[in-house]
Amino acid sequence: MDTLRERAGLWIESTKVQQWIIALIVFNAVMLGLQTSKDIATNFEFFFDFLDVAIPAIFLVEILIKLYAFNYKFFKSGWNIFDIIIVILCLLPEAGPLRILRTLRILRALRLVRKIPRLRILVEAVLDALPSIQWVLVLLLMVFYIYALIGTMIFGPVFVDYFGTLGQSMFSLFQIMTLESWSVSIARPVMAQFPISWLYFVSFIMIATYTTINIFIAIMVNTMQNLAAASQELGLNKKQSEVSKLLNIPEKEETIIKKENEILLILKDIQTRLDAIEKSKK
Amino acid sequence: MDTLRERAGLWIESTKVQQWIIALIVFNAVMLGLQTSKDIATNFEFFFDFLDVAIPAIFLVEILIKLYAFNYKFFKSGWNIFDIIIVILCLLPEAGPLRILRTLRILRALRLVRKIPRLRILVEAVLDALPSIQWVLVLLLMVFYIYALIGTMIFGPVFVDYFGTLGQSMFSLFQIMTLESWSVSIARPVMAQFPISWLYFVSFIMIATYTTINIFIAIMVNTMQNLAAASQELGLNKKQSEVSKLLNIPEKEETIIKKENEILLILKDIQTRLDAIEKSKK
Amino acid sequence: MDTLRERAGLWIESTKVQQWIIALIVFNAVMLGLQTSKDIATNFEFFFDFLDVAIPAIFLVEILIKLYAFNYKFFKSGWNIFDIIIVILCLLPEAGPLRILRTLRILRALRLVRKIPRLRILVEAVLDALPSIQWVLVLLLMVFYIYALIGTMIFGPVFVDYFGTLGQSMFSLFQIMTLESWSVSIARPVMAQFPISWLYFVSFIMIATYTTINIFIAIMVNTMQNLAAASQELGLNKKQSEVSKLLNIPEKEETIIKKENEILLILKDIQTRLDAIEKSKK
Amino acid sequence: MDTLRERAGLWIESTKVQQWIIALIVFNAVMLGLQTSKDIATNFEFFFDFLDVAIPAIFLVEILIKLYAFNYKFFKSGWNIFDIIIVILCLLPEAGPLRILRTLRILRALRLVRKIPRLRILVEAVLDALPSIQWVLVLLLMVFYIYALIGTMIFGPVFVDYFGTLGQSMFSLFQIMTLESWSVSIARPVMAQFPISWLYFVSFIMIATYTTINIFIAIMVNTMQNLAAASQELGLNKKQSEVSKLLNIPEKEETIIKKENEILLILKDIQTRLDAIEKSKK
Repeated sequence: MDTLRERAGLWIESTKVQQWIIALIVFNAVMLGLQTSKDIATNFEFFFDFLDVAIPAIFLVEILIKLYAFNYKFFKSGWNIFDIIIVILCLLPEAGPLRILRTLRILRALRLVRKIPRLRILVEAVLDALPSIQWVLVLLLMVFYIYALIGTMIFGPVFVDYFGTLGQSMFSLFQIMTLESWSVSIARPVMAQFPISWLYFVSFIMIATYTTINIFIAIMVNTMQNLAAASQELGLNKKQSEVSKLLNIPEKEETIIKKENEILLILKDIQTRLDAIEKSKK
Repeated sequence: MDTLRERAGLWIESTKVQQWIIALIVFNAVMLGLQTSKDIATNFEFFFDFLDVAIPAIFLVEILIKLYAFNYKFFKSGWNIFDIIIVILCLLPEAGPLRILRTLRILRALRLVRKIPRLRILVEAVLDALPSIQWVLVLLLMVFYIYALIGTMIFGPVFVDYFGTLGQSMFSLFQIMTLESWSVSIARPVMAQFPISWLYFVSFIMIATYTTINIFIAIMVNTMQNLAAASQELGLNKKQSEVSKLLNIPEKEETIIKKENEILLILKDIQTRLDAIEKSKK
Repeated sequence: MDTLRERAGLWIESTKVQQWIIALIVFNAVMLGLQTSKDIATNFEFFFDFLDVAIPAIFLVEILIKLYAFNYKFFKSGWNIFDIIIVILCLLPEAGPLRILRTLRILRALRLVRKIPRLRILVEAVLDALPSIQWVLVLLLMVFYIYALIGTMIFGPVFVDYFGTLGQSMFSLFQIMTLESWSVSIARPVMAQFPISWLYFVSFIMIATYTTINIFIAIMVNTMQNLAAASQELGLNKKQSEVSKLLNIPEKEETIIKKENEILLILKDIQTRLDAIEKSKK
Repeated sequence: MDTLRERAGLWIESTKVQQWIIALIVFNAVMLGLQTSKDIATNFEFFFDFLDVAIPAIFLVEILIKLYAFNYKFFKSGWNIFDIIIVILCLLPEAGPLRILRTLRILRALRLVRKIPRLRILVEAVLDALPSIQWVLVLLLMVFYIYALIGTMIFGPVFVDYFGTLGQSMFSLFQIMTLESWSVSIARPVMAQFPISWLYFVSFIMIATYTTINIFIAIMVNTMQNLAAASQELGLNKKQSEVSKLLNIPEKEETIIKKENEILLILKDIQTRLDAIEKSKK
């Protein structure tokens, strides 16, 4: 039963080994940070070149051991597939357009989220809130698409930079939604050509802002629920009870329940006495 | 009873036909998107010209069938009138100032909102929130009007672009309310001429922001109510009960109600026993 | 008892006269709006000149009647004193620096707030929220003063436009707080001279944003309370009960109270029966 | 027992002396404000030079008395150590790079926060909220680090001002998070060189905004709890009960509790009567 396979699986998942891997992830992230300084990067070129081979090698060994231990089950976790992609990215040649892909090595730092429970709960809470806002996002996308199409067709021929293609219009509308220079660098020049276009911009801002508020509220309601759920999961029911305390609810409810218990006890006493009376009657 | 009229009405409102129309709306929106690319638009000109005739024709047929089936009742729904306007817009000649109106064909995509229940509930929730903020909007409009008038009268002669007319002042104030370049491109140049005008801008920003916060809060309260109502409508009472769960209410209330039921049962038992005792007395 | 004085007071405060005055205020606001158009202003100069005399004259008559009717009590209301100031402003000569003061005639439109109850409740709710945020404002002012002083002393000699005087620094900090061009037009140029100054800007933005969030929350809590109070005042308890409905409270509470009433009835019945039994015993 | 040491401690902590010190702090802050005006600073140079010596001298005396009175316990309070640092800063020579440190004398105004209870509660509430957002901040920092690294490696060589070093990238990302000129002055120029980079900016804005919303909500929940706690501390339970009143809870709960009491009284009455009946039976 206690085969080599199982022992390898237990060893690689043990707290000690995992802590070393966390340390390696952090060390790797710091090293990548140091490499952004040209001075350091050139002076310690040999060291960094070594790390660029050594760290992925260690990760590769980790993956291979897991592959050996868990076999085909290994591919069931999205995180494991993510790990494989990261290692492959690190083995790519440094030249050519793939140079940009190599930059994504830093995404390895995201593995920390899985390792630290508090961060995992937070990220899961954030992802859990997405379904509750999905229909608002569908609506927002429709609004974006309609406005982008109108913008591209009407303003496109004149303002190629902002409304040249559907994609550029989408980006401009995103910029307008964040209220960044929407008036000075987009709306006012467009209005100089198309005087009526203020309707387009003002209506879009109102709709987009209104929808954003709704997204915000949906996230708020959801996050509060997730917070409660997460804190219960961690056995930290404190926050929830404090909200109840704020509303002064539980204490009074407790009083009511206690009184009801008293009432029930008395009633049962009365019942048994009536039983006795009835029996004595017969 | 089962006249042609009724059969036509049932057929046009049937799920199958409606799904085809939804597909047609989406297809139409995608085609309008593709047309924004000049390459595609010129290469497939014949195809798009055909669609520009064919799709409105289908919509026209849909309207005519509905008109035949529902008669004068057809005009009772705002959406039907919207449909007629869209079809008429598509029949307009492409030249002249009406070219812009033709762009509004994309509004046809809004018909999707009616067809997909989740979107309809969302939009109706949004529209339902409007009455609750109408008085704040009246107040905001008054503030806008007063500030626009002061701005036009004092800054207007010097800063024609920003405060030349009442309309331009309104637009500038809207820009200031969104906090977009309010200082660098409006307030600072104006303050160079009218040193005291910082009072005008700072007070407007404070009032406008304060009012916006109140609008936000009003929408928040309303949306939460509408969310609860909408989820009840869909039989999705889950969200609501989760809020209650968060506040720890229902479970305790449930306990109380259960205990009350127990108490009532015991009391009724006592009553019947007392009845028996009284009867035995007689 | 029914002297001329009293009759004058009743007449001027009657709904009919007040509605005429509301109409006059709105008409006056619209006329001031039309005057911003040069074409209209020059074409109808005579008419507007007449209005500029006639409308203040009517307001003056209103004030005189009120003064006659209410005597010294007239000065007890802030709004009445506001009215007098407005009329005096309208009698000022058009030339010289007082021209700006004449623009403030538009403030007369604010009298509408007093006349329409819903607006008055809203404005009073807004003003009621101020005490709850006053200490946060004191803290914010302290932060502003400290940062303005540091900014003026260190950046002042180099960046005269932004940090030349304490007042200019305050304005710049207000601009930074609204996040308007804080980086591109203020922080980046300053950082080019004082590299460490990013600490100044980033810390100020964090503190100011944090404080704003607290102001927002304080207003939110307060507005919700005021909303409840105001709706009770208007007999519109609807909103409140809907919030309760959202939390599923009242219905269950109602159930509990109904059950308690049932229980009480049964218990009283039992008591009277026991009375009867005891009496029959004797 | 009533030694000189104790008497000195009581005297320096007495309300009267503390009020004089508060007055001195405010006076000092105002004087520092006046000094920013060159006219006043040069005309009253002698006076300000005197104050620059006199005020720190008084603070030094305060510290020395406290040191004498409380001995080593004096160093247990962070505020006392802050006081010592301030006095030392004032004794530094005016020339050289330390001139900037002298500007920090204004931080002395922060001592007001300790002296005024309402401000202290506010600041403590703000600091208390920090732990609840610490993990969100850790996540935000990770996001910043990853994006800064990617930005520095890919855009760094071309856009030296914005992404030259890790620090500059961090600052640019902070600017993007505040949505200040993110598109016009950063994203659009970068996109002209790296067309795919819109993914970088849009995804960062979405993640950063989403995280900010979560920070906001966490602060909101926390502040509401702290507000309740603080108002209880001050014996101002009013706010809390008003929230309950808004939800219509306590009054109904009160009714229920009152009814339960009635029920209990009746039941106890029934019990004693049954006792009597049972006794009479025997």
